[in-house]
Amino acid sequence: MTDIAHLGPVELLTPEAERSLEFFVDVLGMEVEGQEGRSAYLRGWGDYQRYCLKLTESETSGMAWCGLRSTSEEALRRRVAAIEGTGLGDGWGDGGRGRGAVYRFRDPDGHRFEIYYECERYVPPEHLRPALKNVPQRYTARGAAIKRLDHVNVLAADVRASREFANEILTYRLYERIELDDGSEAGAWLSVSIAAHELIYTRDAYGARGRLHHLAFWVDTREECLRAADLFLDNDIHIEAAPSKHAIAQGFFLYGIEPGGNRIEVTTGGRFVFDPQEPVVVWTEEERARGQAWGVHTVESFHTYGTPPVEGAAVAG
Amino acid sequence: MTDIAHLGPVELLTPEAERSLEFFVDVLGMEVEGQEGRSAYLRGWGDYQRYCLKLTESETSGMAWCGLRSTSEEALRRRVAAIEGTGLGDGWGDGGRGRGAVYRFRDPDGHRFEIYYECERYVPPEHLRPALKNVPQRYTARGAAIKRLDHVNVLAADVRASREFANEILTYRLYERIELDDGSEAGAWLSVSIAAHELIYTRDAYGARGRLHHLAFWVDTREECLRAADLFLDNDIHIEAAPSKHAIAQGFFLYGIEPGGNRIEVTTGGRFVFDPQEPVVVWTEEERARGQAWGVHTVESFHTYGTPPVEGAAVAG
Amino acid sequence: MTDIAHLGPVELLTPEAERSLEFFVDVLGMEVEGQEGRSAYLRGWGDYQRYCLKLTESETSGMAWCGLRSTSEEALRRRVAAIEGTGLGDGWGDGGRGRGAVYRFRDPDGHRFEIYYECERYVPPEHLRPALKNVPQRYTARGAAIKRLDHVNVLAADVRASREFANEILTYRLYERIELDDGSEAGAWLSVSIAAHELIYTRDAYGARGRLHHLAFWVDTREECLRAADLFLDNDIHIEAAPSKHAIAQGFFLYGIEPGGNRIEVTTGGRFVFDPQEPVVVWTEEERARGQAWGVHTVESFHTYGTPPVEGAAVAG
Amino acid sequence: MTDIAHLGPVELLTPEAERSLEFFVDVLGMEVEGQEGRSAYLRGWGDYQRYCLKLTESETSGMAWCGLRSTSEEALRRRVAAIEGTGLGDGWGDGGRGRGAVYRFRDPDGHRFEIYYECERYVPPEHLRPALKNVPQRYTARGAAIKRLDHVNVLAADVRASREFANEILTYRLYERIELDDGSEAGAWLSVSIAAHELIYTRDAYGARGRLHHLAFWVDTREECLRAADLFLDNDIHIEAAPSKHAIAQGFFLYGIEPGGNRIEVTTGGRFVFDPQEPVVVWTEEERARGQAWGVHTVESFHTYGTPPVEGAAVAG
Repeated sequence: MTDIAHLGPVELLTPEAERSLEFFVDVLGMEVEGQEGRSAYLRGWGDYQRYCLKLTESETSGMAWCGLRSTSEEALRRRVAAIEGTGLGDGWGDGGRGRGAVYRFRDPDGHRFEIYYECERYVPPEHLRPALKNVPQRYTARGAAIKRLDHVNVLAADVRASREFANEILTYRLYERIELDDGSEAGAWLSVSIAAHELIYTRDAYGARGRLHHLAFWVDTREECLRAADLFLDNDIHIEAAPSKHAIAQGFFLYGIEPGGNRIEVTTGGRFVFDPQEPVVVWTEEERARGQAWGVHTVESFHTYGTPPVEGAAVAG
Repeated sequence: MTDIAHLGPVELLTPEAERSLEFFVDVLGMEVEGQEGRSAYLRGWGDYQRYCLKLTESETSGMAWCGLRSTSEEALRRRVAAIEGTGLGDGWGDGGRGRGAVYRFRDPDGHRFEIYYECERYVPPEHLRPALKNVPQRYTARGAAIKRLDHVNVLAADVRASREFANEILTYRLYERIELDDGSEAGAWLSVSIAAHELIYTRDAYGARGRLHHLAFWVDTREECLRAADLFLDNDIHIEAAPSKHAIAQGFFLYGIEPGGNRIEVTTGGRFVFDPQEPVVVWTEEERARGQAWGVHTVESFHTYGTPPVEGAAVAG
Repeated sequence: MTDIAHLGPVELLTPEAERSLEFFVDVLGMEVEGQEGRSAYLRGWGDYQRYCLKLTESETSGMAWCGLRSTSEEALRRRVAAIEGTGLGDGWGDGGRGRGAVYRFRDPDGHRFEIYYECERYVPPEHLRPALKNVPQRYTARGAAIKRLDHVNVLAADVRASREFANEILTYRLYERIELDDGSEAGAWLSVSIAAHELIYTRDAYGARGRLHHLAFWVDTREECLRAADLFLDNDIHIEAAPSKHAIAQGFFLYGIEPGGNRIEVTTGGRFVFDPQEPVVVWTEEERARGQAWGVHTVESFHTYGTPPVEGAAVAG
Repeated sequence: MTDIAHLGPVELLTPEAERSLEFFVDVLGMEVEGQEGRSAYLRGWGDYQRYCLKLTESETSGMAWCGLRSTSEEALRRRVAAIEGTGLGDGWGDGGRGRGAVYRFRDPDGHRFEIYYECERYVPPEHLRPALKNVPQRYTARGAAIKRLDHVNVLAADVRASREFANEILTYRLYERIELDDGSEAGAWLSVSIAAHELIYTRDAYGARGRLHHLAFWVDTREECLRAADLFLDNDIHIEAAPSKHAIAQGFFLYGIEPGGNRIEVTTGGRFVFDPQEPVVVWTEEERARGQAWGVHTVESFHTYGTPPVEGAAVAG
């Protein structure tokens, strides 16, 4: 059984704070829950927490840290103990803005995480109060109107090491992975629920460490992914990969590069895993060469670009 | 062959000008093209003309007039001659705001129309310039983001008389109609294109004249009709008929009552008619008793309420 | 933490075996995995088990039993011990056709369940082998092409008693419930995953015991629910409730009555619950009086009809 | 005003008659209306005529001829007179199988056409009788369940010559075209209705004459295009271009190669043209270099492959 309930919030860095904020508010349709210093706190209309994204002005792009909410106080203690055993723990701190104590640590690749249990549920202001009491907020219908943070895909120099850490120390389940002909692992799709993926590791083409591949935000229908592509087009957001269906995990995707340089996915669909003994699906190099589900070959940048960018490397957007 | 290219713009009256404007802008997602006196000129992102809706503050609700654009100058002259022959013409006037000369007339039920040919195409301001050159405006993605005015449904004391006028004098084609057991006509669906309906006459339950049943605005997908229902709900717009599919013409619908009291439809789908000899589909009283396509029975107000309301009559909303 | 992985298979009884089978195969688009005696074993293209539905010819309609798969052997032992403590256990038996040992029991209302862990994964025959290795079967695209069994809604004379049993003894989480003005419980929505509901108890209007309200089958999109309504219409399947959106749990629905008299739902959507501390949503009598999400009022039969039918009671269909 | 009501039926040639028939019946979901000699007559559930496709076994692939139905007998006479004036007429013949007299001719590129007025409406057999009287046939829900033939795209050595013929002699309206930097015309999108395209000419990369680029079949929603891609995948139909949105005319597409080698599109969407003075949209070489609406670059074969294939040329599929 997993000790993690879900992933988030995430702190994202941007050297283009104003334009990035415009993107998340006007194009993705998120709400600004608050602002503090050089950070804006943003939420989707379906996020039960106060925010799922802390957007912070910075000299570079990339993900500062990824939050992980445990399923209980006891689960939190169990995970902290396990992490401490690996020597990757950084110690307790204050989560701030609606979260209680957080325990900070790094995965083997160096990405920073904050695991916590205590947090506040969002209470909408009057103008965002929903008609139905089982949603946290009114549906704002602005831009792509994303619902919530869905998953995080990070790059790793050594996918297997980080994947095993997520499996064994963090209690993630492994649903699918790519194994190259040389036996190395090129990608791993992990989840703590029936959803096909919540945390993804893929290989860093530059062997760099701690980089972000993309953050994915959920919409309820494929039609909304298609609409989002129209919005990206009209708003000069570089579409790196037009809407189509992944073979792995079967999610429907749209990838674009936000003004700060970070890759953002608008996603829906994806298979559900109900079998407690579900065998891990292993994709071979040959199978991956066939492209996405419908044969679409993603552009080269999709396999190499990450944030922060590696000096001298190819750029997307 | 028809001499009418399409219907619109339409002037709609509202006793609640401010709240009606908020509805069309924030909930339906239309753009204000301009304002003059007590009127606002509104457009969908897909309207090629400058506006499809003139919204005017008034003591009552209802439709002031409905525009009809002819297919050519010659077609306009032909129609004016035909209308004059019926004695229902009111003479030429200035269309104003982007339209040239208009010829004003009434149908046998007393609804006012303005037929014209000359008009300006919309030129978007910089911030609404689209990425693709074959759409008139950027997709704004605000609220229901309706695309354009689609059709108008008026009530008539004598459906057959007005339908025959539309057929013979205006060159509309009749695609479907309702014939009651007593031989009278309860509704008629007319079009000048392959679209299933553009002008609809249904029986006024009060025998009143010149009233409006609803204006319908187009969205490209059924998913957008479903989204619009969520928006109506969250914005306290009375949903008179939740999204479902009409048996007649097969359009997908959502009906609500805007703050000024006028019934508004968000619509998509509907069958296309390609056969130049398409037989008129005649629905019997028994067939209509089965409800809409999937058996949904519309509420009583749908069959009785119109604008302006009849004194002492039932209200919707 | 829950000890149940998911619900299913289910055995459904029908006095119209041939016509019911035609419905599940041709209209819902399920595959016959096998036939034994008076039973057909049916599956959706997304079911990982060999079948999710055992359809059995019988003198009456209704659900014979509902399977529950545990998350592990240990979880199974824990649940059996808990059930035995309530005195509602019936003992171990052979699950048959791909399942190992099952422990049989009744809930307080008398519905029969079979809890088990051991089971076989489906291996498709050559003509049903899928192109993508992470789906159990080719997408057949016949009829509504339902993907899998989604949830079961049973009726109970005493909703609270059965709901508490599901909560405490079976480890289901309670997400939403209806509490009438007199303090009694009229409905309870339970789940063992992030999905909004998997097991539902609603009040039996006749105070009868052990009856079924409906079985729900999943499709991935709302468009497929709308298509299914067209299919029900063309195949003379009584549509009890046309496609619309539930307020409770926010699922999208279509309800029809299969030829054997059982109510069947085609469903998608529904909210996800990620908060481990998610407060239970309690709906009042007044709130329920507003109808479904978009104001649709379900027909009376929806609140009274169940299978097997109660003698002398109203019928749906 | 146009004298053509719509395009179709079309005779398609295939060297793989049996497998092609399986494709149209099982994957596209068409009905066999009849068979005669080496031909099968196929229809979509929404075709008002008896068939829209005559599929004929042949030594090669390609389109034998394309039918054009006039809007009236008088319109037919007008068009025949105009065609005869060009010297491209081949004379009158019998349309056969539900069509009256047809006048045969070639366009300047050598594609064969049959223009006619008289034809029978489809009368469904008992098992295909629809529930709603305003559709020609029950919705069969098999495979992609295409509704009707939508448009034809032929290749031409000289696009401008054939386009001008379609404009002036056949009364098609030109909505969009591609003009290369050297002033030559690389493509032209023509229609006789408000639909964005019905007849398309694009340049033959080999300078060959009389070849087919693709036949397009209509579905009502984008979701059905996405489903069709899943079906192509599972049925080993080569997907040449995965679902996405065209910049030109804004149609949503899926392109595959049927077993006989002909390119087939499953399409929906596309803009409507209501302005009788709609300016022709001219796309430049630079604009086309940006790919489809969302930046997708079609594979090389899409720009070169046609049927019958040119000896020694590249193949798709």
